[in-house]
Amino acid sequence: MIKVAIIGASGYTGCELMRLSVQHPHIELVAVSSEKFSGKAVGEVFPSLGTTVKLTFHALAEQEAMREADFVFSALPHSEAMGVVPHLIQQGKKVVDLSADFRFRTPDLYEQWYKKHTAPELLQEAVYGLSEIYREKIRGAQLVANPGCYPTAVLLSLIPAVQNKLIDLKSVIIDAKSGVSGAGRSPVLNSLFAEANEGVKPYKIGTHQHTPEIEQELGLIAKQQVSLLFTPHLMPMNRGILVTAYATPKNMVAQKDIVNIYQTFYQNDKFVRICPPDTLPSTHQVKGSNYCDIGIIVDSKTNRLILVAAIDNLIKGASGQAIQNMNIMAGLEEDSGITQLPLFP
Amino acid sequence: MIKVAIIGASGYTGCELMRLSVQHPHIELVAVSSEKFSGKAVGEVFPSLGTTVKLTFHALAEQEAMREADFVFSALPHSEAMGVVPHLIQQGKKVVDLSADFRFRTPDLYEQWYKKHTAPELLQEAVYGLSEIYREKIRGAQLVANPGCYPTAVLLSLIPAVQNKLIDLKSVIIDAKSGVSGAGRSPVLNSLFAEANEGVKPYKIGTHQHTPEIEQELGLIAKQQVSLLFTPHLMPMNRGILVTAYATPKNMVAQKDIVNIYQTFYQNDKFVRICPPDTLPSTHQVKGSNYCDIGIIVDSKTNRLILVAAIDNLIKGASGQAIQNMNIMAGLEEDSGITQLPLFP
Amino acid sequence: MIKVAIIGASGYTGCELMRLSVQHPHIELVAVSSEKFSGKAVGEVFPSLGTTVKLTFHALAEQEAMREADFVFSALPHSEAMGVVPHLIQQGKKVVDLSADFRFRTPDLYEQWYKKHTAPELLQEAVYGLSEIYREKIRGAQLVANPGCYPTAVLLSLIPAVQNKLIDLKSVIIDAKSGVSGAGRSPVLNSLFAEANEGVKPYKIGTHQHTPEIEQELGLIAKQQVSLLFTPHLMPMNRGILVTAYATPKNMVAQKDIVNIYQTFYQNDKFVRICPPDTLPSTHQVKGSNYCDIGIIVDSKTNRLILVAAIDNLIKGASGQAIQNMNIMAGLEEDSGITQLPLFP
Amino acid sequence: MIKVAIIGASGYTGCELMRLSVQHPHIELVAVSSEKFSGKAVGEVFPSLGTTVKLTFHALAEQEAMREADFVFSALPHSEAMGVVPHLIQQGKKVVDLSADFRFRTPDLYEQWYKKHTAPELLQEAVYGLSEIYREKIRGAQLVANPGCYPTAVLLSLIPAVQNKLIDLKSVIIDAKSGVSGAGRSPVLNSLFAEANEGVKPYKIGTHQHTPEIEQELGLIAKQQVSLLFTPHLMPMNRGILVTAYATPKNMVAQKDIVNIYQTFYQNDKFVRICPPDTLPSTHQVKGSNYCDIGIIVDSKTNRLILVAAIDNLIKGASGQAIQNMNIMAGLEEDSGITQLPLFP
Repeated sequence: MIKVAIIGASGYTGCELMRLSVQHPHIELVAVSSEKFSGKAVGEVFPSLGTTVKLTFHALAEQEAMREADFVFSALPHSEAMGVVPHLIQQGKKVVDLSADFRFRTPDLYEQWYKKHTAPELLQEAVYGLSEIYREKIRGAQLVANPGCYPTAVLLSLIPAVQNKLIDLKSVIIDAKSGVSGAGRSPVLNSLFAEANEGVKPYKIGTHQHTPEIEQELGLIAKQQVSLLFTPHLMPMNRGILVTAYATPKNMVAQKDIVNIYQTFYQNDKFVRICPPDTLPSTHQVKGSNYCDIGIIVDSKTNRLILVAAIDNLIKGASGQAIQNMNIMAGLEEDSGITQLPLFP
Repeated sequence: MIKVAIIGASGYTGCELMRLSVQHPHIELVAVSSEKFSGKAVGEVFPSLGTTVKLTFHALAEQEAMREADFVFSALPHSEAMGVVPHLIQQGKKVVDLSADFRFRTPDLYEQWYKKHTAPELLQEAVYGLSEIYREKIRGAQLVANPGCYPTAVLLSLIPAVQNKLIDLKSVIIDAKSGVSGAGRSPVLNSLFAEANEGVKPYKIGTHQHTPEIEQELGLIAKQQVSLLFTPHLMPMNRGILVTAYATPKNMVAQKDIVNIYQTFYQNDKFVRICPPDTLPSTHQVKGSNYCDIGIIVDSKTNRLILVAAIDNLIKGASGQAIQNMNIMAGLEEDSGITQLPLFP
Repeated sequence: MIKVAIIGASGYTGCELMRLSVQHPHIELVAVSSEKFSGKAVGEVFPSLGTTVKLTFHALAEQEAMREADFVFSALPHSEAMGVVPHLIQQGKKVVDLSADFRFRTPDLYEQWYKKHTAPELLQEAVYGLSEIYREKIRGAQLVANPGCYPTAVLLSLIPAVQNKLIDLKSVIIDAKSGVSGAGRSPVLNSLFAEANEGVKPYKIGTHQHTPEIEQELGLIAKQQVSLLFTPHLMPMNRGILVTAYATPKNMVAQKDIVNIYQTFYQNDKFVRICPPDTLPSTHQVKGSNYCDIGIIVDSKTNRLILVAAIDNLIKGASGQAIQNMNIMAGLEEDSGITQLPLFP
Repeated sequence: MIKVAIIGASGYTGCELMRLSVQHPHIELVAVSSEKFSGKAVGEVFPSLGTTVKLTFHALAEQEAMREADFVFSALPHSEAMGVVPHLIQQGKKVVDLSADFRFRTPDLYEQWYKKHTAPELLQEAVYGLSEIYREKIRGAQLVANPGCYPTAVLLSLIPAVQNKLIDLKSVIIDAKSGVSGAGRSPVLNSLFAEANEGVKPYKIGTHQHTPEIEQELGLIAKQQVSLLFTPHLMPMNRGILVTAYATPKNMVAQKDIVNIYQTFYQNDKFVRICPPDTLPSTHQVKGSNYCDIGIIVDSKTNRLILVAAIDNLIKGASGQAIQNMNIMAGLEEDSGITQLPLFP
C-alpha cells in the first residue's frame, strides 16, 4: 500500500481525490490538510464521504500528520502550491501538484499570467502530467504538474492532429464549455445557483489563464510557437467540459482517415474513446469517469476539421488524472482505482 | 383592436404567442388551432394561461373559427405551413409564418434542405422578417416569414460586420448553444430531462437546416455567395440561445471602432443592446424579453473578431419577433406589447 | 405618477422591484439605494435592466436622493430595515417594507426569533401586507409589512380552511419547497450552483424563522393560538415556492365542497387561481407572475385535506405583492403593473 | 464468476445494472435483452458504457442468448415481467425482478392497483428484496422482488420506528420528492426537459401505486393493517429520492434516544448511514452510491417525529439494491461491486 497525503483537500478536487483514494486498491490515505476546516472530521465537511473517510483535516503547519506519507497530492490553489511543494520534494516524497505552479517549462509565462515564481528551480524537473502523452517521463518523475481541466480536453483532442501535421496551426479556434464546479468551492457571486442556472455565457475570451498552457504544450508538439484563440463558456451543470475545436486542414483529408489516425494514436490508451462515425461526445456520457471521448468531423463544404472532446472536469480534468499519474509513477496498472464507468443519466 | 388567430398554437411558440397576444394592447385574440388538442380549453393544455386565455383549441378544418381574424400567426411545423398559408393569403389575411416554409427566396434551397415546396409562388412575395434589417419591406408585406431562432441571433450579430465589409467571409465560424425548448414540445428521447440535464453536446455539425438560411441572408447583405460553418450545441436550460461567432477582420481594427459601428448601426433599434466594453452577453440577461444583446471582442493576438449574441429563443427567436413584425405590418409602435424586461434570475 | 424610491435594491427582490416599477404605468422610479454598489449604474449590476433603468445606486446616507420620493419600498435585510423605516415614516412617506421587521404585532415574537426590536412603536401601526386578506387595512396604511415568501403561500392556502373552521388546527403539517433565489444574492456556500444543483434537502425543520409569522397570522384568523410544524426544503431551481399542507378535516367533507368554499373565498381576487378538479399546481405555471395557484385534494382513505399552493417567490412572495400593496395604498387598480402572465416553459 | 443476464435492459435501471455488473468482481455479464433495440450494440444505445460492455441487445424471444445465465435481473416493465419470470424460474435460474409484479404477498392488492396477475403461484415464493430487513429470507430465495424506489426510502426510514412501536401508525404522512429518471426513459410529455426543469409539482396524491406496497410492508412489521398518506413530487434533477416522513410519537421521546434506536437497528448495515445530530440528508450526498442516509428530528413543540431519508433512486432504489440482493443470494460479500462512494458534487 502507498501511503498518501492530500493537501488543500477541502475543495471539489480534494473531495474527489479523497473519494478515489479510499476506493483505490493500493492507496492508504494517511492525512488530509485544510486551513479552513482544520480540526473538523472529513465527514462533517463532505457528508458524502461520511462513514468511509475517517480522517480529520489538519492545518498544513502540523507537518507531523504527513510524515508517514510517501506520496502527496497537492490541491492547493495556484501560487500557494509553490510555497509548499519544494519542502515535500526535499523530504523525498513524490508529488502530483494540481495547481498551475509547475506546469510551465520556464518561469516567464507563469509570471506573465500568474505571479512571481518562488521555486523556478523545480520547473525543469517537473513533468507535465498529461498521462497519455508523457507517460514515459511521468514514470520516472518525482514531481508531476497535473494539467488544467481545459488543457486536458483541448490537448487530447488536438495533439494527434498537430503531431501528424494535419492542420494549419494559425487556424485553431477553441470554443470550450465548462460546468460550474470548475470555478471551485469558494462562495463567489458568479458561482451562485441563481446566477449560473438557466444561462450560458462566455468569459475571459482570449485572456483565460489556460491559454498559455495550451499554447506551450501544442508548441512543444509542433516544434514551433503556437498562438491560438481560446474562448471558455460557463454552463449550467455541475460537472463536465466540452471542447469544440475548429481548424483548417493543411490538405483535404477524409474523415475516416483522420478517425484512423486518432484510433491508432490512442490505441493503447484505455481512457480515450474515439466516437464511432456519426456520433458526437457529450459530457453526459463521461460524467463520473476518467474517460475523454473524442469526436471527429470533417466539413468539406467549408474545409474545416472539427474536433470535439468531452471530459469530467473533476476527474480526467483533475483528480482522476492525478491518480492516473500516481499509478504510472508507482508502477501500478495505469487504471488502478479509476475504472469507474460513467454515471448515466 | 386587431383580430388575431394563431394556428398550430399548442407548442411552445404557440404558448408564447398566446401569452404575448392577450397582453398586447391592440390585439384581440379570436381563435387558436391545434389538431392534437382540438376541443380542449387552452387552460387545460397550458395552466399558466389558465384563467386569462378563455379560448378553446379548434381543428384547422373548422375554418369558421378564424373567419373574423384579420391577422394570422402560423406556428405550424415546417412543411405543414405551406399547405395552409396560401389559403389565408387568398382570403386577404395578413400572415406571419414562424416555419421555414417561406424563408427562402427561391425553392431550390428549401427543397434541398427540407422537401418539395408546394407554394413556390409565394416565395418572392414573402418578406424575411428580421425586423431590424427589413423593417421597411415588412411594413408593406402581406406575408412575413419569421426567421429561425439561430439565424436571428447569428444575423443580428454578423450583419453590421458584413455590411461594413469588416470581415473575411470565408473565415466565419459560428458556435451556437441553445436551450432545450428549441426542440419543441414533442416527446422525443433527446429532449427528455434525464437525457439533456447535466450535459452539453454538439449536434448536426455543418448539417443543421438553419445553415442555408444564414448563408442566404448574409449572402444578400454581402452581395456574394457565403458559405460558413455552423455548429449548434444542446444546453441544459429551458430557454436561450447564445451565439459565439468567430471571424478574421479584413484589416486590423480597434475594438472601440467596431463597437461604434455596431452602436450606430442599431441606434434606432430598441431591442438590440450593445454590451458595454469588457462585458459579455448571457442568455440569463435576456430571458423573457425580446432583446438581443451583442458583445464585441477583438483578440489582437490572433487577429480575430469575436461576436457574441444572446436571445430568448422563444421570444426574439420566435414569438416576440413575430409580434414585432405584426406591429410593423399594422403600423403600431414596434415594441407594442413586447416591452417586458428580462426576468432575472 | 407616483414617485418611488427603492432602498436596499441590489438583491434579487430589489432587482424585481426595479423591473416591475419601470414597467408600471403609474410609477416614476426616482432613486435606488445600495451600500455595496453605491456609485454604480444599475445596468452594471443588473445587465438585464441595462438600457431601461437609467439610475445609479446611491448610499443610504445620501438622503437627498430620496427626498422627492412619495413612496418607498424597503428591501433591506431583516434588522436593518427597522433602523431606517422610522425616519421615512416621520418624513410622511408611505412605505412597503419587505423585511420581517414590521410583520409581528408585538415585539416579543420578533425578539425571540430575530433580535431586539428598535422601533416597536411602529408594530401596531404597520399592516400585514397579505393583500387578499387585509386589503381594507392596507388601503389606509402608511406602513405595510410585506409577508415572507413562505408565509404568503402557506397563508393563502390555509386561511379559507381555517376561517371556515374546516380543519383541526393541531393537525397542520406544512412541507414547503423553495428555489434557491429565496436565499438571496449573498455568496454563501449553500447557495453555490454545485452545492444546490441536482440535490434536494430539508433545512431548519421546525426552527425556520417564518414559523412564528405563519402561526401569528393563522392564530389571528382562528382566534386562538396556533402551533404547527413547518419544514422547508431547498430545491434546484431559480424561482418558485411550492407548499404542500396537510391537515385533518374536523368533519368529513367532499372535495368539491371545499373547492367551492375556496372559489367563493377568492372570487374577487385576480391573483389567486383555484386549480380545476384533478389538477395540481406547479411552480412552473406561475413563474414570472403574481399568481398563487391553489390545488385541493381530499384523501378520504386517510381522512386528510391536502392543500397545495405555488407562487413565484420573488413576485407574489416578495416584489410583486409589494407592488400590489402599493397599488392598494395608492388607490390604483390592484393589478396595475403586475398583470404579466407566467413565463412557460 | 456468476453468469448474469439482464432482460429489459435498455431503460435507466437496465443501464445501471449493466454498469454495475461489468464492474462487479464476481459477475460475468453474458446477455442483455431489449425489444426496442434488439440487434444494436449496447454502446450505440448507451455511449457511456461504450467500449466496456461489448454485448449486443437481443430480443427476448431469442432465448438462446440467456441459456448460459445462472442469474437473471429482470428490468421489464410492470405486468410484462410476470409473463417472463415464471419460465426463468422453471429453468432453475435465480431471478431478481425489478418490477412490481412479485412484490405483493397476495394477488388482490396487485390486481387492485395494477392488473390481473398471471403468475399468482409465485407470489408466496417470492421474497421482498428490502435487503436490510429480509436478508435471511433473501439468502435462500430463488425469486426476489426488488422494492420500488419510493418504498425503499420510505421503509428504511420508518421500519425501526414501527418495529419499536414508537409512533402512532394513523398519523403517518409521507412527502416524497423524486428526480425525473424515476419516470423512466420513455419519451412522454411530463418527462421533457422544458416541462420538468425549473419547476416542482406533486402528482398522484394518495393514489400512487407505491402506496399499497408501503402499506403492506409496514403492516407486516406492525402486525396490523396500515393506511397512510403518500404524496410524491417531481423534482428538476436527474437522480435522487428524498422522503420526509411525519409521524406522531406514541410517547414523548428524546431525539437522541431515537437516534440510538436507529443506530442500533442498522449497526450491521453498511449502506444505511444515520446522520449525525443537527444534520439532515440530501440526495446530493448519496448520488451514485447504494447508501440510504437517514436523518431524525423530534419537534417537541408540535410533538412530531420527522424522519428524512435520501437515496439514489436508480441505485439503492433499483439496480444497486438488485445487485445487493444478488450478492446475498449468491453468498458473496453483501457490498461486492457496489462500494462506490457518492459522486459529489
